[in-house]
Amino acid sequence: MNKYRTHNCGQLRLDDVSSSVTLSGWVDIVREFGALTFVDLRDRYGITQLVFDSQKDVEIFNTARKLGREFVIQATGTVRERTNKNPNRETGEIEIEVDSLNILNISKTPPFTITDVTDGGDDLRMKYRFLDLRRSPVQNNLFFRSRVALEVRKYLSDLDFVEVETPFLIKSTPEGARDFVVPSRLNPGQFYALPQSPQTFKQLLMVSGFDKYFQIVKCFRDEDLRADRQPEFTQIDCEMSFVTQDEILDTFEGLTVHLFNEVLGIHLDTFPRMTYDDAMAYYGVDKPDLRFDMKIQNLNQLKGHGFSVFDSSEFVGGLILETGGESFSNKDINELTEWVKRPQIGAAGLAYIKFNVDGSIKSSIGKFYSDEFLQNLKNDFSLKDGDIFFILSGETEKTLRQLGELRLELGNRFGLRDPKVFKPLWVIDFPLLEWDDTTQRFYAMHHPFTSPKKDDIHKMSDTDLNVLKSLRADAYDLVLNGVEIGGGSIRIFDRDLQARNFNLLGFTPEKAEEQFGFLMSAFEYGAPPHGGIAFGFDRLCSVMNGQNSIRDFIAFPKNNQGKDMMIDAPASIEQDQLKELAIKLDS
Amino acid sequence: MNKYRTHNCGQLRLDDVSSSVTLSGWVDIVREFGALTFVDLRDRYGITQLVFDSQKDVEIFNTARKLGREFVIQATGTVRERTNKNPNRETGEIEIEVDSLNILNISKTPPFTITDVTDGGDDLRMKYRFLDLRRSPVQNNLFFRSRVALEVRKYLSDLDFVEVETPFLIKSTPEGARDFVVPSRLNPGQFYALPQSPQTFKQLLMVSGFDKYFQIVKCFRDEDLRADRQPEFTQIDCEMSFVTQDEILDTFEGLTVHLFNEVLGIHLDTFPRMTYDDAMAYYGVDKPDLRFDMKIQNLNQLKGHGFSVFDSSEFVGGLILETGGESFSNKDINELTEWVKRPQIGAAGLAYIKFNVDGSIKSSIGKFYSDEFLQNLKNDFSLKDGDIFFILSGETEKTLRQLGELRLELGNRFGLRDPKVFKPLWVIDFPLLEWDDTTQRFYAMHHPFTSPKKDDIHKMSDTDLNVLKSLRADAYDLVLNGVEIGGGSIRIFDRDLQARNFNLLGFTPEKAEEQFGFLMSAFEYGAPPHGGIAFGFDRLCSVMNGQNSIRDFIAFPKNNQGKDMMIDAPASIEQDQLKELAIKLDS
Repeated sequence: MNKYRTHNCGQLRLDDVSSSVTLSGWVDIVREFGALTFVDLRDRYGITQLVFDSQKDVEIFNTARKLGREFVIQATGTVRERTNKNPNRETGEIEIEVDSLNILNISKTPPFTITDVTDGGDDLRMKYRFLDLRRSPVQNNLFFRSRVALEVRKYLSDLDFVEVETPFLIKSTPEGARDFVVPSRLNPGQFYALPQSPQTFKQLLMVSGFDKYFQIVKCFRDEDLRADRQPEFTQIDCEMSFVTQDEILDTFEGLTVHLFNEVLGIHLDTFPRMTYDDAMAYYGVDKPDLRFDMKIQNLNQLKGHGFSVFDSSEFVGGLILETGGESFSNKDINELTEWVKRPQIGAAGLAYIKFNVDGSIKSSIGKFYSDEFLQNLKNDFSLKDGDIFFILSGETEKTLRQLGELRLELGNRFGLRDPKVFKPLWVIDFPLLEWDDTTQRFYAMHHPFTSPKKDDIHKMSDTDLNVLKSLRADAYDLVLNGVEIGGGSIRIFDRDLQARNFNLLGFTPEKAEEQFGFLMSAFEYGAPPHGGIAFGFDRLCSVMNGQNSIRDFIAFPKNNQGKDMMIDAPASIEQDQLKELAIKLDS
Repeated sequence: MNKYRTHNCGQLRLDDVSSSVTLSGWVDIVREFGALTFVDLRDRYGITQLVFDSQKDVEIFNTARKLGREFVIQATGTVRERTNKNPNRETGEIEIEVDSLNILNISKTPPFTITDVTDGGDDLRMKYRFLDLRRSPVQNNLFFRSRVALEVRKYLSDLDFVEVETPFLIKSTPEGARDFVVPSRLNPGQFYALPQSPQTFKQLLMVSGFDKYFQIVKCFRDEDLRADRQPEFTQIDCEMSFVTQDEILDTFEGLTVHLFNEVLGIHLDTFPRMTYDDAMAYYGVDKPDLRFDMKIQNLNQLKGHGFSVFDSSEFVGGLILETGGESFSNKDINELTEWVKRPQIGAAGLAYIKFNVDGSIKSSIGKFYSDEFLQNLKNDFSLKDGDIFFILSGETEKTLRQLGELRLELGNRFGLRDPKVFKPLWVIDFPLLEWDDTTQRFYAMHHPFTSPKKDDIHKMSDTDLNVLKSLRADAYDLVLNGVEIGGGSIRIFDRDLQARNFNLLGFTPEKAEEQFGFLMSAFEYGAPPHGGIAFGFDRLCSVMNGQNSIRDFIAFPKNNQGKDMMIDAPASIEQDQLKELAIKLDS
């Protein structure tokens, strides 16, 4: 059988002039100019202009005129130089004078335009995802993803990492997020679970002596879907033996630097390392966006001057907005005040001190402080004319979080979060445990296999809640532009320490044995010290592109109800299937 | 914190003598020689000998003597040249004189020995898979797998293939094998299914213009597990647009040649291409093992000589065993006769004609044929002295299959299936449909999306079963040493043809729409001609190593009941979980 094409639609150049070629692709647009008809033929690689001349072959000319958008055609002809070149297109110096045309498939009019900026709404594009995927920006996202995945594999393989596939049909563990489960037909009444991560398996591989493991792997969480969460998502999952935390950070900093360099041509400097405590104190969040400074300032000195709101607060803190002398109106301040009062932020109000360019001071709390006091404040914090102090107060942790949110909002409003700038950092020394007021128990901040810091192990037997809350772990996150793109820890590799940690997390010894007996057992047969990290691959791809939505980097994403609108899943299944699986609907 | 090691256990050489080094790993063996104790320290990279000298440090010496097998230790010392070199070990010219020893973890005595040939039974090794994975042969299998996967990705990426991840939570389709299903909590009463393959998604990606797609991906089939089947398995899944069958075969022949060359250093010649009909006629199977010739011979000329068994048979066929003059006893023949009479083969008996080296002829059917007839037979088939004709008869298709099985058995018994020899071939022109007598309907031989051969399309409207059975498809398998390692087809890309094919397969239009409406709809918007292939990745790895079991190339396989003996999955889940999922056990 003859080939469908000799070249793709992005390939031909001036050098090919006079060659006889065959192209196949989609009709992007048909333009008629009297005796000539031009067709832009499109495929993944580019667009090539076809010319049909009524003088030459009126039958083909007439066929070409009737081609619809998205028809699939095959055209054979001769490459010639264009008189009217298109410098914006790689094939823009040539065109094909067509002498044979074959319609391979017709197309109905698509429900939205196949253009970079489309007129299709979200729902429509989800239902016709196969057409949305025909658009260049969406295709490019997935080509990008494929390149990043390949570079990850090459880089880690060069460092002796082995990619090992871990199983998808595993055991349900009630700890953590909800599992998706899979009824077993061969074992009636029993269920597999889909993995939330390959955590225990990669640790077992370390016990097996694999030394350096990685896997790019789908993981599953049955969560109530918030915006931009997906029930299935992809991790770059890694683990190493006989390593210190520093060696892990160095290795995966190297990987990140490599990816930016190789795929984006962007050089990243050495990543700063910041403790969790510092991140919370200075940025009010464990994933600071370092594209702009604006640290949280301790303003407890404002207490004790008669302003009862501050005086009764555990903490008063502020953010310095450098306006560079640009005017900041009362309206702007009112907007920000409304913003911090939204329930998502939950502040009672927003105080401010505005150091005007004319030297005057305007403040919502001015009456409580002398001009001298405020001038001193200006000097203490090296403020310039035009700068504004935004101030919140209340319970320390809550206020820091609110200031952290306000900081990001100011960053957004004042263009301080440039999507083309990348500022990574490591946040280290995370707490081991997280107290939950509702259930009155501790949860693992990272996961139950994370090692406490060596110097903190002795505190694990303490009964004082505050001592337990102060336990620090060898746990770390890789943060990029305010987004956590990876997280990991040094793991416990001692059976007794693991048992003590399970105990702190409220597992009875029986429950720990039932859920993780295989891991505890593995620790008895020569487990090496080990640790690792997992990157959110979908997230990494979107952040590397300065984008917010992971959905745009997933070929066939689900909507917020966990539905695939295109294939209409989930769906009901046959009674026979249920019967075979020994389950019934509970309606 | 100090590093756990400066080198791994396979790294040090004579050049490193006098260096101070730190190694970490597992105690492989402890050998005591009076004042000296030797410890073989093992990790993934090799084994290095440690020496402990009682004259130097009696405390460390005493600790070393008490080290148990599989203890995890860290040793610091000086590299020195060995007096007694071990040429079989890459580090065999040096040893480490240890001056600091740190026991990182102890180990119970493993339930089986961590040696290349172990004393552990299957069940024990499955339960303690993390220890079985510590054995070199098992580790090497998985390192091999990782290398092959990386080479696949590099090779296909260099050819502009894009790796795209398709979803795992999809829709159940009753066609084909049973699906594993996943109850949806957010959509009570509805279920996702785990994919048996990404077939429809990769076709949609072609409609989307991705042009060349691949994915190394887990697939799931809820089958009654036979030996060496796994409920989850891995495919190298590929699809291309605007391609002919020949281009697909060339591309993936190229991939296979590359893998053998790159990973095994073995050069493969051009793969023969054989029709399904020829494969069945000459080898009695659609996946012939070409490591040895021994084609099936048509012996219908033996009919009509008074031997009623042959005379009443549709087909008489034989296999020529070239003994090279070696004796083949009556006992051997009796064994083979019993073998073909086993229910798995189901022959009534085995006839033979033995052309002895002394020129005499011995045959179980000798009395029906003159010596002259048999001598002519010998000449017709160019038989040599010592050759034996094994003959079966009966219904054609059944007899061919039996001869195919006998051929492989003869190959096994006479060492004709060398695991170090690799003979790939393409089997092409498979039938489109497969008739099932029990359900009295057609099933798709490959799958419902496979295109009939162009010249056969007109037969699809025929009502004669035999005409329909004769329909040929653009479907092909890649066969290696009698094992199908890949299979694929050119796909239907026309909505009407797809509808006609669904009709032949017994789908009502409504059912076809419900199950595959999204694909049929996609075909209306400019679907390109396309086709593809999927390799069984587990199988490919085992065949490339001349091994039979895929289980040995899977890190955490399941047993024949679909159970993971190590983590004890599947297992029962909590009532709360069932309730949330809106299902009940049906016991």
